Amino acid sequence: MRAGLGERVDDCVAVEEPLQIRVGDEIWTTTMRTPGSDHELVAGLLLAEGVIRSELDIVRMAHCVPTEGESAGNQLEVQLAPGVAGIELETSRRSNLTTSACGVCGRASIDDLLARLAPLPNPASFDATWIAQLSAELARAQPNFAHTGGLHAAAIAEPARGLLVVREDIGRHNAVDKAVGRLLLDRALPAPSSVLVVSGRASFEIVQKALAAGISALVSVSAPSSLAVGTAARSGMLLVGFARSGDFNVYAGAERLRGLSGRGI
Amino acid sequence: MRAGLGERVDDCVAVEEPLQIRVGDEIWTTTMRTPGSDHELVAGLLLAEGVIRSELDIVRMAHCVPTEGESAGNQLEVQLAPGVAGIELETSRRSNLTTSACGVCGRASIDDLLARLAPLPNPASFDATWIAQLSAELARAQPNFAHTGGLHAAAIAEPARGLLVVREDIGRHNAVDKAVGRLLLDRALPAPSSVLVVSGRASFEIVQKALAAGISALVSVSAPSSLAVGTAARSGMLLVGFARSGDFNVYAGAERLRGLSGRGI
Repeated sequence: MRAGLGERVDDCVAVEEPLQIRVGDEIWTTTMRTPGSDHELVAGLLLAEGVIRSELDIVRMAHCVPTEGESAGNQLEVQLAPGVAGIELETSRRSNLTTSACGVCGRASIDDLLARLAPLPNPASFDATWIAQLSAELARAQPNFAHTGGLHAAAIAEPARGLLVVREDIGRHNAVDKAVGRLLLDRALPAPSSVLVVSGRASFEIVQKALAAGISALVSVSAPSSLAVGTAARSGMLLVGFARSGDFNVYAGAERLRGLSGRGI
Repeated sequence: MRAGLGERVDDCVAVEEPLQIRVGDEIWTTTMRTPGSDHELVAGLLLAEGVIRSELDIVRMAHCVPTEGESAGNQLEVQLAPGVAGIELETSRRSNLTTSACGVCGRASIDDLLARLAPLPNPASFDATWIAQLSAELARAQPNFAHTGGLHAAAIAEPARGLLVVREDIGRHNAVDKAVGRLLLDRALPAPSSVLVVSGRASFEIVQKALAAGISALVSVSAPSSLAVGTAARSGMLLVGFARSGDFNVYAGAERLRGLSGRGI
C-alpha cells in the first residue's frame, strides 16, 4: 500500500459510488457508499431516520433494472406499506434535526434533541472483560481494511453468541446502517442485550442509530463526541470509547458493566 | 486519555453541537459541528453546495439573538444577495447529487456526476519534497487533537507562504468547509496554486469541495476512495494519499509533481 517518495502505484482503493434511493415515486436521497448490502443499508437508514419502525413497514426493495448501456446497482426502489411515513419521509433527509428546533436558539436545540429520545427499556448488563475484547474481534473480522486502509466497520455482538453481523463501508454511518439493517430484515430488532461496535469515532449520529435499533450499548475504537456522551447518558446507553488493546474508557452507563476495576468506581 | 480496564474517566472530549443554518426566512439545513468558525463553515458549505459562487453573494451572516433562558450560538442567519441561488438552494441539501441522475441507473449516475465537473483551469505544479512534509506540518498545527483524539483537521497551503489556514472539527467535511470558507471570506478564492491538506481519508465529497474552491491539489493522510480518484483524474486534480512520515502515494495528476522518484515514473 505504501511506496517510495511520490511513487505512482496501482493501489487498492475502497470503492465509493452513489446509491440513489427512491421511495414510492420520489427520490428520497442519494448517499455515497461502498456497493454491496444495499438492501440492508436502506433498511437501516429508513429505521434510523424514523421513516419506518419495523421490517413490516417495508413491502419490497429492488434495484432498478438498467436500460441498455447502463450498469445496474446504483439505484434502489423501496415500496412502503400503506400509511407508513408521510411527513417523516418529507422532512427526514432535508432537515432531520431541525423540526423541533425551528425558531429557537442554541441550547434549546440540543435540549429539544435530547428530549425527543426515549430512555432505553430493559438495558442489559455486560461483563467488562467481554467488552474489552470486542474491538480486537471486530478487527479480525474486517477483511477489506487491510487491503485498502479506507473502510470503516461496524458489528453487532451478543455475549452468548459473539458477533452477529459485521459490515464494512467507506462511511462509518453506512457500516452501522448495514449492520442494523441486517438485523432488522432478520426480525431481530430491538436488540437490548446487544452491543454496537464501531471502528471509528462515536458521534451523536451513531448513538442515535443505536437507539433507533433498540441497542443499548455502543463500543467505539476511537473518541466519542460531547453530544454522543450527553445523549448516551440521557438515554441510559452504555458508551465505551478508545476500546483498544483490551482496554477502554467508559463515558456513560458504567453501572451496567460487571467486573469493572479502576479509579472512580 | 487512556486509563485502566474500564476506568471511568473525566476525559476531554471533542465538542459536537447542532448548527441550524437559516437562509432568508427558511431553515436550509442543520449540521452537527464543533462550535467555532461558524461563519467560515457556512460560507464554505454554501460554496461547496453551489448555492453561492463568490463571497459577494453573501450580504450578511449573524448568529441569531437568543431569547431569555437560551444560550446563543447554534443558529446562524444568512442573507444572500438578490437573485442568488433559487433552485440550488431548494435542491442542494435534500438531493445534492440526484438532480442529473433522476431516472437513470448505475453507471450513468457516476458519469453524470463526473460530467458536471469542469476541468481545473491553470493547475500549478508542486515540488514533491514540499508535498511530502505537508502532513507533518498539519499535525504540528493541530492543537486540539492531542487533547481529545476526536478532531479532524484541514489546512490550505501554498509553496511560498506555507499554511494559510488550519481548521479543526469533529467532521472532516466541516473542517474543510471552515478552511475554504476562511479563504472565501478573505476573497482569496479560487486558489489554483494552493493545496488542500486533510487529516483523514479523501472521499468524493472532499474532492468536490476542493474543486468548488478552485484548489487544484488534495493531500490526504489516509486512503482515497475510488470515486475520489476518478473525480480527481477527470478534473486534472493532483491527488495524494497516505501522506505520512515524509512519504506518500500519488493517485492522480502525477505529471504536476516535480522531483518525483520511484518506479512507474
